[in-house]
Amino acid sequence: MRVSVIGSTGYGGMELLRILKRHPEFQIASYVSSSQAGRPLNRSFPHMPQLTETFWDLDVKQICDSADLIFFATPAGVSKEYAPLFMEEEKVVIDLSGDFRLNDPGQYETWYQKPAADRKYLDMAVYGLSEWFAGELKTAQLISNPGCYPTAALLALLPLLKEKCLDPASVIIDAKSGVTGAGRAARQPNLFSEINENLRPYKISHHQHIPEIEQVASGLAGTDVRVQFVPHLVPMNRGILVTIYAQPLNKYTKADLLQLYEETYASEPFVRVLKDKWPETKAVQGSNFCDIGVQVDERTGRFVILAAIDNLMKGAAGQAVQNANIRMGCPVTAGLDMDPLYP
Amino acid sequence: MRVSVIGSTGYGGMELLRILKRHPEFQIASYVSSSQAGRPLNRSFPHMPQLTETFWDLDVKQICDSADLIFFATPAGVSKEYAPLFMEEEKVVIDLSGDFRLNDPGQYETWYQKPAADRKYLDMAVYGLSEWFAGELKTAQLISNPGCYPTAALLALLPLLKEKCLDPASVIIDAKSGVTGAGRAARQPNLFSEINENLRPYKISHHQHIPEIEQVASGLAGTDVRVQFVPHLVPMNRGILVTIYAQPLNKYTKADLLQLYEETYASEPFVRVLKDKWPETKAVQGSNFCDIGVQVDERTGRFVILAAIDNLMKGAAGQAVQNANIRMGCPVTAGLDMDPLYP
Amino acid sequence: MRVSVIGSTGYGGMELLRILKRHPEFQIASYVSSSQAGRPLNRSFPHMPQLTETFWDLDVKQICDSADLIFFATPAGVSKEYAPLFMEEEKVVIDLSGDFRLNDPGQYETWYQKPAADRKYLDMAVYGLSEWFAGELKTAQLISNPGCYPTAALLALLPLLKEKCLDPASVIIDAKSGVTGAGRAARQPNLFSEINENLRPYKISHHQHIPEIEQVASGLAGTDVRVQFVPHLVPMNRGILVTIYAQPLNKYTKADLLQLYEETYASEPFVRVLKDKWPETKAVQGSNFCDIGVQVDERTGRFVILAAIDNLMKGAAGQAVQNANIRMGCPVTAGLDMDPLYP
Amino acid sequence: MRVSVIGSTGYGGMELLRILKRHPEFQIASYVSSSQAGRPLNRSFPHMPQLTETFWDLDVKQICDSADLIFFATPAGVSKEYAPLFMEEEKVVIDLSGDFRLNDPGQYETWYQKPAADRKYLDMAVYGLSEWFAGELKTAQLISNPGCYPTAALLALLPLLKEKCLDPASVIIDAKSGVTGAGRAARQPNLFSEINENLRPYKISHHQHIPEIEQVASGLAGTDVRVQFVPHLVPMNRGILVTIYAQPLNKYTKADLLQLYEETYASEPFVRVLKDKWPETKAVQGSNFCDIGVQVDERTGRFVILAAIDNLMKGAAGQAVQNANIRMGCPVTAGLDMDPLYP
Repeated sequence: MRVSVIGSTGYGGMELLRILKRHPEFQIASYVSSSQAGRPLNRSFPHMPQLTETFWDLDVKQICDSADLIFFATPAGVSKEYAPLFMEEEKVVIDLSGDFRLNDPGQYETWYQKPAADRKYLDMAVYGLSEWFAGELKTAQLISNPGCYPTAALLALLPLLKEKCLDPASVIIDAKSGVTGAGRAARQPNLFSEINENLRPYKISHHQHIPEIEQVASGLAGTDVRVQFVPHLVPMNRGILVTIYAQPLNKYTKADLLQLYEETYASEPFVRVLKDKWPETKAVQGSNFCDIGVQVDERTGRFVILAAIDNLMKGAAGQAVQNANIRMGCPVTAGLDMDPLYP
Repeated sequence: MRVSVIGSTGYGGMELLRILKRHPEFQIASYVSSSQAGRPLNRSFPHMPQLTETFWDLDVKQICDSADLIFFATPAGVSKEYAPLFMEEEKVVIDLSGDFRLNDPGQYETWYQKPAADRKYLDMAVYGLSEWFAGELKTAQLISNPGCYPTAALLALLPLLKEKCLDPASVIIDAKSGVTGAGRAARQPNLFSEINENLRPYKISHHQHIPEIEQVASGLAGTDVRVQFVPHLVPMNRGILVTIYAQPLNKYTKADLLQLYEETYASEPFVRVLKDKWPETKAVQGSNFCDIGVQVDERTGRFVILAAIDNLMKGAAGQAVQNANIRMGCPVTAGLDMDPLYP
Repeated sequence: MRVSVIGSTGYGGMELLRILKRHPEFQIASYVSSSQAGRPLNRSFPHMPQLTETFWDLDVKQICDSADLIFFATPAGVSKEYAPLFMEEEKVVIDLSGDFRLNDPGQYETWYQKPAADRKYLDMAVYGLSEWFAGELKTAQLISNPGCYPTAALLALLPLLKEKCLDPASVIIDAKSGVTGAGRAARQPNLFSEINENLRPYKISHHQHIPEIEQVASGLAGTDVRVQFVPHLVPMNRGILVTIYAQPLNKYTKADLLQLYEETYASEPFVRVLKDKWPETKAVQGSNFCDIGVQVDERTGRFVILAAIDNLMKGAAGQAVQNANIRMGCPVTAGLDMDPLYP
Repeated sequence: MRVSVIGSTGYGGMELLRILKRHPEFQIASYVSSSQAGRPLNRSFPHMPQLTETFWDLDVKQICDSADLIFFATPAGVSKEYAPLFMEEEKVVIDLSGDFRLNDPGQYETWYQKPAADRKYLDMAVYGLSEWFAGELKTAQLISNPGCYPTAALLALLPLLKEKCLDPASVIIDAKSGVTGAGRAARQPNLFSEINENLRPYKISHHQHIPEIEQVASGLAGTDVRVQFVPHLVPMNRGILVTIYAQPLNKYTKADLLQLYEETYASEPFVRVLKDKWPETKAVQGSNFCDIGVQVDERTGRFVILAAIDNLMKGAAGQAVQNANIRMGCPVTAGLDMDPLYP
């Protein structure tokens, strides 16, 4: 199976390269970057000096001739235009951007401040939270890969929402992310000297992952879920930790919750439910794991649910390949069997 | 005014040294460490090679002869035993440990897992949150300096609690701290390689700062305040950021909150209420400032209140000196006029 | 081929686990730790919660029954005692410690301040710098895996020394290492707060890797090579960069050097000679690569040679597995085909 | 004494602000930035939310009316044009850029790749290495503040060069710097994610500080000194460590060197000669100290000299204020009496 990666000079594209190069069944046919077209890969990839082949331009015909599966790792607004062109040629598209995540074009326009994709394609898009939508993913032509925060938040929340264990108006998600989540574009606030020895909240009440989380959570819960979401930048490269607070609708013990999560994810190789320790980001670094920890606070009665992922792996490229495996009938762990890099 | 610092080889003690050495009215008479007694200061302080004088042993008589104001920067359990001895000699004591923070000895024993201080001294202790208890601090003989997390959390919460703006059962404090908060003792989980590139929640539901926050918050609110508190270790040296979520009892705008906070702290030189940006830890690094930001989320109606401090300054040594200034009638900013180190 | 890892709770042992778990031909039969014997692996490995099997004690008979290849990732002084016991049982031993690196027992005693191994075993040990001694490694029963600094320094120096291009008295190695090189034992100077935002030289003129470098360099050069070596601790987890200065014996251009290095390492999959950029540690993170850069300074005429490795991979566990591959007749890249983790 | 800071939004300018705000005798009259003229200071300074006054434009007349001492903290090429305009108005200028450091305009043009300053002003400029040129600085109208690397390198080298202790062709300077040295402009290679967990050599043989070091060293030595200089970027914000290797011309002991350095710097408050430990950058963080350590390697006979500074303090703004103190007749430590921030 030959694949093409479009938008490959950012961190998501680089991580796709790391995974796909060793994938037993996929083969990279082309690496595409409009801005670097014609230049050698190793100019953008300091860790790959041996890659002297060049980036392709975003030439739909040429790419279609070379590959059957197309990954978009582009900024918001690109795949919306180009994915349909590949789909008309019967290609399968996996989009890592936010262009096809929100079903409602109005929501996209509100939160992304850009024109939305054509509704026809929004309707075709299957949301690629692998553990929850594998059935639909198996036949999807357009897979909309989840955002990094939504991946961690939803894997942590959905078991409780599905079982109607919590008050859907009570959910608070305090999210913390490493800085690769902010991308590879040169911006002063992301300079080493500004981030190092700093902890910075941002986009309070305005992050575009809010409607994505609410849409999926509400769909699963069968009721309107409204979340409080505050993200923070942490001085580290990789990793997301979400700390979620919610009000139970009944009385549960930690043991009840552990049982629920273990049953929910019993056959999922990438979700690890922790019994005796809390999730921490280093424990998943470089891997496709999502570690989940649960607590019922004895004093307040509240749920505290934590989840840790590597934002470039389970939060982006890893989950994209997991979805590709599901779609193409490969073993779900194909190419994703790397253990965390510790320390 | 001659002062003595007891327990001076940890990070709190080192920070007291940095401040007191330049204080216009206090003079360090002795630097005390049981474990390093007789050894030169520069052995413990890599940044102070010129300090060849030696640590004193914890000899109460000798210290009393040399100083009138005693700072304890010792681990839990020490000042409980020794502070009374100095108080019998009419000395003023400022304790940076938790020994005198909880009024109820039973609470101390539950949360600290140690025998509590004598109730007589617990009754004498004045809680040293400078901005809120300056009146009592002016005449206190025993000042119990607040914990680092409670300082940030209470400065952020008290204006709303005092004005009864929020539901006292709704408070959630998601707290993040730099690693100096974990002390200078050699422990494997605090090694550079374990902390760097890691974000780690800890002591969920069990942190000893929970009863301290609740005691002061409840006292000010005039009702029982119960908080959800989850701390996290962030890979940076200094800084605490608390992100607080709470349910309003009425409808407020961000402008209402800004006005309330600005009025509350109008005459306080170390509290900075931010209008157009969010608090971040680097902006207070090395200074005694507490930066506060407020938000009323339009979608959820919830309050989001953020506060950032340097945990070794406003969260420990800086506030201790601020309290000493208040107690001794010095200008409250004496010795504390350093701007943040940026970056 | 069943293997055992002895001394497996340190960073070297953890990295062996990461590699061996995915190795196509080796299978981990036992994980041995005297200090953690009987306790589950996941207690020591935060990233491996699923590993509930227990550490074995260092029971030679039991280990011999289960494995044919033994890795020692123990502190200095352990393998010296135990490796011979395994060798008597015909096992192949790969020792990651320094116990068998110095041919001369007196040198070991001088630099390590401990009694040396039995001379019989020192004579049997083959130095495992894979690219240079593969011939002897193929039949070795005892492989002494190189130190992290010597690996980088020697891969950079040996081509010039072998061709007698440089003055053997002129070599200066300025070395910089990430902090995992200092091990996982709890020590105050290695706390996060002491290392972060710090750059620290150490063991100037006294590092035990000096005689190791000189022994191998002198052997290859056929003359006495004496090196100046100053190591520094850098606030990062992984990575070594050596910057080497030396005086040429003749006139060479950068092109001459590139040709020499490319020819020397033409068939070596893990050495990458860089033409247009300098080695940096992130470019090899998590991989077994050694990146080398060369310069002939036009103003001074001096050679400047740089090499970067991941100290836990090519500098320890990666090279150990590379040696095991060579010894056991596996492809040299077996289990080591992971690309660098960037960023 | 009223002063103006031109080019004040970079890290050097910010550090000048931190120092000057507390200086007992200087008062900041204007803060000048062409790019931010008319905007409030707190827009550029996250740590100074209270500074709502605006940046001035670079209007020479207006600035001259308000101040008598002018600091330039501008990129190369600016002060060359503007300093003369202030000097014509009898102002004293202290330039933190490289524009007036090289006496020979041809050298400037070679290394900076820009047209040089007018020779008349190059001749007037006094090189502001405070400890060595205080005599001339007392009356200088134009002070050329040294580069960060030259400050550390020259303070370490000059005692040996002046006494003709070392071979002037043998000097090798391996230099390591925190990332604030690379400035505050948005560039991809300086993003947090590219720098963190990375150690990167750069500008080997081509750094513009090479001719500056050689010019001053040669002048003091009375002979041509040629240095090998390789700088490296270290993942930390502040700090420079230089490790210098050189060949003695006679036999010296470490005690000889300590005596020489202690005598040389006996009356200098900012140079600390270390006896029992090595310089490390954290020990000078935020202060104007230069820590120096010396070694005579017993095996190689070579000198190893180390020096650590905070690149923004002694390497830039701190030394600039030290020079201003010398020039204006203030105590040399005025405004510079802050101890290092540790940790």
